[in-house]
Amino acid sequence: MSHTVEIISVGTELLLGNILNSDARDLSRELSGLGLNVLYQSVVGDNPGRLKAAVELARSRADVLITTGGLGPTCDDLTKQTLAEVFGRELVFHPECAEDIRCFFARMGKEMTENNLQQAYLPAGCAVLSNAWGTAPGCAFEAAGTYVVMLPGPPSECLPMFKERAVPWLSRLSEGVIRSRTLRVFGMGESAVEALFRDRMNQLQNPTLAPYAKEGEVELRVTAKAATAEEADALIAPVEAEVRALLDDLVYGADVSGLEQVVLEGARDRGLTLGTAESCTGGLIAKRITDVPGAASVFKGGIVSYHCEVKAGVLGVSQALLDEKGAVCAEVAREMALGARRVLGCDLAVAVTGVAGPDPDERGNPVGLVFTALAAPDGCWVKKLNLASQAARRDRTRNLAANHALDMVRRWLAGLNPEKDCKEAEG
Amino acid sequence: MSHTVEIISVGTELLLGNILNSDARDLSRELSGLGLNVLYQSVVGDNPGRLKAAVELARSRADVLITTGGLGPTCDDLTKQTLAEVFGRELVFHPECAEDIRCFFARMGKEMTENNLQQAYLPAGCAVLSNAWGTAPGCAFEAAGTYVVMLPGPPSECLPMFKERAVPWLSRLSEGVIRSRTLRVFGMGESAVEALFRDRMNQLQNPTLAPYAKEGEVELRVTAKAATAEEADALIAPVEAEVRALLDDLVYGADVSGLEQVVLEGARDRGLTLGTAESCTGGLIAKRITDVPGAASVFKGGIVSYHCEVKAGVLGVSQALLDEKGAVCAEVAREMALGARRVLGCDLAVAVTGVAGPDPDERGNPVGLVFTALAAPDGCWVKKLNLASQAARRDRTRNLAANHALDMVRRWLAGLNPEKDCKEAEG
Repeated sequence: MSHTVEIISVGTELLLGNILNSDARDLSRELSGLGLNVLYQSVVGDNPGRLKAAVELARSRADVLITTGGLGPTCDDLTKQTLAEVFGRELVFHPECAEDIRCFFARMGKEMTENNLQQAYLPAGCAVLSNAWGTAPGCAFEAAGTYVVMLPGPPSECLPMFKERAVPWLSRLSEGVIRSRTLRVFGMGESAVEALFRDRMNQLQNPTLAPYAKEGEVELRVTAKAATAEEADALIAPVEAEVRALLDDLVYGADVSGLEQVVLEGARDRGLTLGTAESCTGGLIAKRITDVPGAASVFKGGIVSYHCEVKAGVLGVSQALLDEKGAVCAEVAREMALGARRVLGCDLAVAVTGVAGPDPDERGNPVGLVFTALAAPDGCWVKKLNLASQAARRDRTRNLAANHALDMVRRWLAGLNPEKDCKEAEG
Repeated sequence: MSHTVEIISVGTELLLGNILNSDARDLSRELSGLGLNVLYQSVVGDNPGRLKAAVELARSRADVLITTGGLGPTCDDLTKQTLAEVFGRELVFHPECAEDIRCFFARMGKEMTENNLQQAYLPAGCAVLSNAWGTAPGCAFEAAGTYVVMLPGPPSECLPMFKERAVPWLSRLSEGVIRSRTLRVFGMGESAVEALFRDRMNQLQNPTLAPYAKEGEVELRVTAKAATAEEADALIAPVEAEVRALLDDLVYGADVSGLEQVVLEGARDRGLTLGTAESCTGGLIAKRITDVPGAASVFKGGIVSYHCEVKAGVLGVSQALLDEKGAVCAEVAREMALGARRVLGCDLAVAVTGVAGPDPDERGNPVGLVFTALAAPDGCWVKKLNLASQAARRDRTRNLAANHALDMVRRWLAGLNPEKDCKEAEG
């Protein structure tokens, strides 16, 4: 039998939009990895009537119920009481939990208020999930074919509690595993990708193939279910090969965080250093590269030459050129890249100049006109982009420009033509 | 009558834990601001049967239904079909939507694949919510006392569509107007802010006062309901004054996008220019400043001196100092700021050097040790921060460091001591 899961997140702060429900995302990801199908996520407030109804509903449409939140010591924390009632169990004092809570406060050198001992009451006959990351213990039990797990709400407790405490208890449920592999595509829009693979997506059952639009790019996720990880991977491999054959060099990576990771790793493998010269992207490319832990082994630095003075003074772009053509032209992009390579002493330098908007520049260049350039040991390449239509928003124009710049480096590192036009750069 | 809302997010990628449900958070927050009570958030996959059941359930327990996702051109996009079926409406081709979609592709200079026209089919008699941020239009209709709004899933479309298109349509549900003002606080943690205002928050009915934790800062939102905007504003003013009196210079702005906006506007008002020198933040501060439209009138540029060579070679930081003390110390921060001010020719330069993690640096400096510096016409200030405890994650450490650096500029521009310690810099 295949198990189905509902995650119920309890907390009025979620319904007020105060916080992101990262617990639901984290648990869904982990549960999928265990081969358990999450069919629903629900959020209800700290209201016993609505929580009770949500639990009754959940047990009618899923056989594994996971709750997050509402295990704390305050009068708003009603999850245990409510679930105990629904499943006909008493709440029983667990002295070992009380002792854990007392020790937790002692370790912190703080006095424990009496209400904290509320947290030691758990449903009779449950498995206690002790909490090494906070005070509220979780619990798990089976009742008439429904598997119930209650976890604390704070993300810094919920995810480790799940992995360390709930997974061993849930292992009784899993048959086989689900594995997925995410291919990242730059240079073709989501609808074009979808059109290309529609028939195959409809045909495929195991693995499945699904596209996801990301900002300026597309992800294709291949997901397989099998008895073992090896068998699942063996199902994925031919579909991955098929996608790569069709999309060719537009697939820039698999299971990576983005172009910046591929560029960093590619440069590291070749022992090359990177640098940036940015005008309209204003530091975004450098920021994205340094988002990746370990960037320091490759990335030397960058110049954000927002004003022409900095383009001329720091990067050495010709003042006569700037006077004649302005900052947004192919020649300036080229000189910025060459200048960054020289000033920063790096092997590969990438440059961007353009109009991010919201208004055209003082020479009347339209929003979205962007030039990206790459200076490498064997030459310098420039790409002209018109991102206006795809990018109504300033942040989107900037992000797309950064993607194109990073993709030039990626292509050069892969031995491809860095200037090559994208097939369809929407997204 | 008080209206109750359920948000239904449609997308298997949410159930796989692929993405965070930021739409639900964003919409919950906006809806609460409108005085509409969000009672449930639900997530279902791209499965027509389960979606249909979820919609039937939602209409039985709420009178406003807002869906996100599933409006795109692919065969997974089933929201419109399913809701049309539940509410007994035909899907009708809307030529004006088709025209919008065609224009969108034409502006991009691209060929439109035929499947995109699926997006022009909307329920008969609905109000079309045109999409200026993407291709899929949304829609809204009333059916037997239930108000239905369908919005696209991508967060960059969902939130602006809600604010610009859905809110005017939903205004029929609210009597009078709701206005809110958001005070931004840097330098005190959420729990301290909450403790300070707890009694007042419990007392206040109209306006209400509510805290929201943001990354490294806190927002206090004052929301009033009244017959007119003027009356609502008159209710808000004394509570705003009360908050400002208590928090004093920790309130850095009202209804602003962040510290970067306040810093840019403050510098512009004074006719001063800005520059940056960044090590561990890697371009993030420059990126945040240039996120603000019109940054060019103030921001000259920045140096991302990730490697020491760039600190010495471009910013002129003393090599002897770098050799002796390493890159993470107060003196290097100071020399970076002074160097950036000189090299970029700006009035105010801010610098950051520190250890973003995940690992300590080669001198054993711990993750989270950060120095920020400000060079101004009348002096140079340095602040030492230990962000370790507050910032387990690399991106969080970097963001907090950027906040502290920007806050130094903000304080200098406001005539305050730029070095002043935060009262409690958690958050």
